[in-house]
Amino acid sequence: MSLVVVGSMAFDSVKTPFGEVKEELGGSAAYFSVAASFFTEVKLVSVVGEDFSPEYIEQFRKRGIDLEGLERNIGKTFRWTVEYGDALNEAKTLKTELNVLERFHPKLPASYCNTPYLFLGNIDPILQGNVLKQLSPKFAVCDTMNFWIQGSREHLLETISNVDIVIINEGEARLLSGERNLVRAAKTILSFGPKSLVMKRGEYGALMFHHDQIFAAPAYPLETVIDPTGAGDSFAGGFVGFLARAQAPLNENLFRQAVIYGSVMASFCVEAFGLRRLWALNVTDIQCRYAAFRDLTAYEDAELF
Amino acid sequence: MSLVVVGSMAFDSVKTPFGEVKEELGGSAAYFSVAASFFTEVKLVSVVGEDFSPEYIEQFRKRGIDLEGLERNIGKTFRWTVEYGDALNEAKTLKTELNVLERFHPKLPASYCNTPYLFLGNIDPILQGNVLKQLSPKFAVCDTMNFWIQGSREHLLETISNVDIVIINEGEARLLSGERNLVRAAKTILSFGPKSLVMKRGEYGALMFHHDQIFAAPAYPLETVIDPTGAGDSFAGGFVGFLARAQAPLNENLFRQAVIYGSVMASFCVEAFGLRRLWALNVTDIQCRYAAFRDLTAYEDAELF
Repeated sequence: MSLVVVGSMAFDSVKTPFGEVKEELGGSAAYFSVAASFFTEVKLVSVVGEDFSPEYIEQFRKRGIDLEGLERNIGKTFRWTVEYGDALNEAKTLKTELNVLERFHPKLPASYCNTPYLFLGNIDPILQGNVLKQLSPKFAVCDTMNFWIQGSREHLLETISNVDIVIINEGEARLLSGERNLVRAAKTILSFGPKSLVMKRGEYGALMFHHDQIFAAPAYPLETVIDPTGAGDSFAGGFVGFLARAQAPLNENLFRQAVIYGSVMASFCVEAFGLRRLWALNVTDIQCRYAAFRDLTAYEDAELF
Repeated sequence: MSLVVVGSMAFDSVKTPFGEVKEELGGSAAYFSVAASFFTEVKLVSVVGEDFSPEYIEQFRKRGIDLEGLERNIGKTFRWTVEYGDALNEAKTLKTELNVLERFHPKLPASYCNTPYLFLGNIDPILQGNVLKQLSPKFAVCDTMNFWIQGSREHLLETISNVDIVIINEGEARLLSGERNLVRAAKTILSFGPKSLVMKRGEYGALMFHHDQIFAAPAYPLETVIDPTGAGDSFAGGFVGFLARAQAPLNENLFRQAVIYGSVMASFCVEAFGLRRLWALNVTDIQCRYAAFRDLTAYEDAELF
């Protein structure tokens, strides 16, 4: 089934211990849509400026991504400048230039109505709420960040109460819940209304809290991690993309598989700067990495205690 | 098969956000031996002072632990004072009083000879080497810490080259290898001679590097973690204890199960101060937690991409 994503398109300037790129194509909607496009039909809602070249548009078109919802406004595309230290899991924002994103009011094209799946990327919770009202999706997932948790808590709780799944990182989960312990943090967040919570933990993998069950997925132990930018949105793209693709009614096992596919897409994302590794992927790559994840945690109860 | 452990016996004074204990029974040999005693026959080699009360001795005896190798010397038992912050994974040592441990030279009783399994707790690598020469075990595992990695590197590398498995935490693996990336760190450490490396990652679980395979195990998501002291030694006790118990020849799957049993024992250890939770355990508790670990990572390839 098809999927709408609402989020940012950006030019990211990124420095890691392994190199540096200037104004690399990025943004939550970009990472999410490319990752999800391997699983299902994706409709993108975002905004770019006059500096967004037709070659980029063409790359998204090649992945079959519907761009009717991509506005092009007067001004420059959103820019983000970030630096990562040796630990790679701590992003230090050097500059944020909102540009056209500052006046972004997502409007869904008529052709997007009745799309059953929705991913709300990390944007103002008020805008997330507006999109939810425009679409009334069958299944909605949202992301957020510390900035909105601290600065727009009430609107964010309104959004969270109206989605099925919240995907955030463990630090955000602690801030949102006020609980240091992750199990307690999850209980608090689930009490706000969503059916499930997925906590991303960077190089340590992810935890999913779904009804009374907890699922733990490792991250793929990579020998070379070049750039963690976009890993979270790529995870969300694989996760929601797989759920939207699934033929069977959604159940615990499908949610668990979705976490693994999310982890697969994140593991590819970090292997190169920007979207470079994702553009170059094919279905066989994804299937092989999924099998590698299976090997990573598999064991039989051959000898019991 | 039976198992010798060489390590410290201690009185730990521990402060965590959840409380405080003074001179609580601890030490690597204590945690390891109690955890391993649920799986196999354990012979302990350590040293205590005149202040080590007969009631403690009785507790170990009740768990069937052989104490012929426990020296009682003139002076006081080793004492360690530690404080943990909110993160719980960062121990801040406030005081270390070696006392009788300062002049500890492990001598294995004749009855310990021909014991097939050996765990070398975190002590001076020179002493670890002496024990290896005294015992010539079929299967040896060692732990260490930053202090020895930095201060006694040559002797440590000698010990590491003579054991089957090294169990250390990820920070120690980075320091020992000089590699930030854990996959590279593992390759470097395996090039020193051991067949396998287990990297403990605290609340994030453990990674095992064994031949060309990597196994990832989560930590158990606990709602209440009281005191992380001894978790690593309890992990090692479950891990080596299970391998020593196994009837089948050791293979990849048994090593993976051993990582899970290690994680099970660590997950119990942190639920209370000191050894309190481990003393109160029974076999059913361990089997239930093992099953809970299985649930934590289980999924079927019900719907494939």
